[in-house]
Amino acid sequence: MVSLVELIARKRDGGELAPEEIHRVIHAFMAGEMADYQMSSLLMAVFQRGMSDAETVALTEAMLRSGKVIDLSHIPGIKVDKHSTGGVGDKVSLSLVPIVAACGVPVPMVSGRGLGHTGGTLDKLEAIPGFRVDLDVDRFAATVRDLGGCMIGQTAEIAPADKRIYALRDVTATVESVPLIVASILSKKLAEGIDALVLDVKVGKGAFMKDIDRARTLAHALVRVGTRAGKRVVALLTRMEEPLGRTVGNALETREAIDLLFGRAPADLVECTEALAVEMILLGGKAESRERALAMVRDSIRTGSAARKMEKLIEAHGGDPRVVQSTDLLPKAPLVETVKAKASGWVSAIDALEIGLCAVALGAGRTRADQAVDPAVGIVIGAAHGSRVEAGDTLAELHVRSGQQADAVRDRVAKAFRLESAAPAPKSLVLERIES
Amino acid sequence: MVSLVELIARKRDGGELAPEEIHRVIHAFMAGEMADYQMSSLLMAVFQRGMSDAETVALTEAMLRSGKVIDLSHIPGIKVDKHSTGGVGDKVSLSLVPIVAACGVPVPMVSGRGLGHTGGTLDKLEAIPGFRVDLDVDRFAATVRDLGGCMIGQTAEIAPADKRIYALRDVTATVESVPLIVASILSKKLAEGIDALVLDVKVGKGAFMKDIDRARTLAHALVRVGTRAGKRVVALLTRMEEPLGRTVGNALETREAIDLLFGRAPADLVECTEALAVEMILLGGKAESRERALAMVRDSIRTGSAARKMEKLIEAHGGDPRVVQSTDLLPKAPLVETVKAKASGWVSAIDALEIGLCAVALGAGRTRADQAVDPAVGIVIGAAHGSRVEAGDTLAELHVRSGQQADAVRDRVAKAFRLESAAPAPKSLVLERIES
Repeated sequence: MVSLVELIARKRDGGELAPEEIHRVIHAFMAGEMADYQMSSLLMAVFQRGMSDAETVALTEAMLRSGKVIDLSHIPGIKVDKHSTGGVGDKVSLSLVPIVAACGVPVPMVSGRGLGHTGGTLDKLEAIPGFRVDLDVDRFAATVRDLGGCMIGQTAEIAPADKRIYALRDVTATVESVPLIVASILSKKLAEGIDALVLDVKVGKGAFMKDIDRARTLAHALVRVGTRAGKRVVALLTRMEEPLGRTVGNALETREAIDLLFGRAPADLVECTEALAVEMILLGGKAESRERALAMVRDSIRTGSAARKMEKLIEAHGGDPRVVQSTDLLPKAPLVETVKAKASGWVSAIDALEIGLCAVALGAGRTRADQAVDPAVGIVIGAAHGSRVEAGDTLAELHVRSGQQADAVRDRVAKAFRLESAAPAPKSLVLERIES
Repeated sequence: MVSLVELIARKRDGGELAPEEIHRVIHAFMAGEMADYQMSSLLMAVFQRGMSDAETVALTEAMLRSGKVIDLSHIPGIKVDKHSTGGVGDKVSLSLVPIVAACGVPVPMVSGRGLGHTGGTLDKLEAIPGFRVDLDVDRFAATVRDLGGCMIGQTAEIAPADKRIYALRDVTATVESVPLIVASILSKKLAEGIDALVLDVKVGKGAFMKDIDRARTLAHALVRVGTRAGKRVVALLTRMEEPLGRTVGNALETREAIDLLFGRAPADLVECTEALAVEMILLGGKAESRERALAMVRDSIRTGSAARKMEKLIEAHGGDPRVVQSTDLLPKAPLVETVKAKASGWVSAIDALEIGLCAVALGAGRTRADQAVDPAVGIVIGAAHGSRVEAGDTLAELHVRSGQQADAVRDRVAKAFRLESAAPAPKSLVLERIES
């Protein structure tokens, strides 16, 4: 049997590892027979040399099997989840779960926390008073069965190999590798007991993938590998140049996600949510056509069934369901300051990365995984992309704890808005759709 | 200041690190601020992307400065050492130090132990009863001053960063990288307080570098980087297809090295030793011409001054100097078995790698750094390259502890000899000479 060092050497030289060799590597790593320094050298070799689809499938399955795979087979229906590669103002999951559940498709969702300029679903949910994201696996399964949806955080039981490997990648400059990203995402998602998955691969300044070619490569790899692993997978490439919707910050975003359930949300957020919901309903087999699926989504909002589903979900998670009818119950920052336009013009760009970083600076996000976030603070976009502003008009609101906090980011927020003399051409949010 | 992770990422993407950044990396690693897993990911990135000469010089100097640099500036003369990349039967250092010292050039030598199929100078010296290779730095300097030579092992004080990094490379498949090899060799050699260095870069089946192109690349890099680090450096590429000389195994090789001091050694070993000695004497400024240097080498043997120097060196190391006149005092295996030719023919090849591995199997070498070696066992080549044998003639002697030991390697040793119907063309041992 070849040694672990020989396996590293083979990948180093561009060779391919057999599925059983990849399983051996992950098993040895989790058993303490392969040291962190050996794994990180293999990760760098993978970064440089890539992995075939067969290798990526094996890595995904090995990481998946390092922990518990939730069994939802006793729940009728095709279980569908959504994963986003992360963006600024991306609160889509919060509206999507109640909408899709209300349309009859079970949604078992395991989400993450924010890190760096991108926010996380768990932080947004925790802005709801009492909301617990740490339900155990049995409660998770029961909630999916009873309500058609549940939203928890990654437990220690789910893909622990991914957790350890991701922690290593983060400190060894091996994050941005397509096969490693694919295996990390899919191992966690496959552990949820899903049958199908919709991927929202964000592209642009505020996203992990800055250009469309790399995003497309990642999306194709996710779809191919997920399909080979036996799941139905669809990916949408969506624009992440500007923040999604009008809010960045946990309670602010939760409010906007609830507003969407009442038909009161900005067009870009609606477009993104509807596009993903349609894919989930189609994969879930609850509609025969795209048109029918879209009608179901809109009906769930018009009839209030999505909002009612949201109330029940919040209740199941120990949260206060009254926030759905009264978003004023969400945490609020004591001070709201405005950032004003110094000149007139058309808003032709809003730098999502800068807005995201400013929100982190206000305390809405974290730069290290062990930091707490302030649920109340954040930024509200006053002048959306494509709108006309006159000098002195409000570009953005800063929801802050103090005037100093606001002063520290005011200029950066103002500069994140690019004003031009002509109106920008409207741009579609969904750029491409990829399926196997 | 950029983070360590950003430095890894830059090398990962093929960028160059500034000298002060490389110094920072090594300092952080030794201070415990950079983890092993971060270093191994950087090492794999270096393996894939290489290093410029400026980077390699900086790495060499950073590793050098991680420990003590021996100061021999109070000793008159140009201090010259030799380093071999390692081969089978390579006992050259043992004769070279007394010869070159007898010719008036001080040789401060820090050597290593055998690992895998290649032997190590320290193991061979320790075959001499009482010989200590662990003199401290002060004794080392005093012995170089008084006798013109000294041969110790790498102490914990010399280039500790190299020691830790080499241990990591060994288990992370990052050994065979030219800049890492260069920095490892030169950091240790530069720590000895030398002014000039002769490198014996072995090429062929029994060597680390199997083909001449890779060996040449390594030799050129060693010469360039050593020169940039302020030393005079010459490299010889020498053949390592067959074992060097007739013996493989510690006491056997020590005996052959002593025999050379009395003019009783095989031609290939003499050629290699003379070529390296000439370079050292020229670098040491003790001869104006190659011819003169060679005459000095041969004089040191003819007059017995090299043998007398060997006696004094052994004495200074606590060993029994009588072994020089009576090599029978060296450890001897209890049993000598012969491997006989099954057919007649000309010896056209003797596989050095196989002979080396068989010697390890007999106990002469080690497969792990913590193993002990048996000084007495080994293999003596009976039928040299280019000689004629008849069926039944002795190909090799196995110096062993038991008949079982011999039986375990007999066939492999026999098969290491290739017999052909025509005499092979004689081949030069020194293939190329490279200087800056």
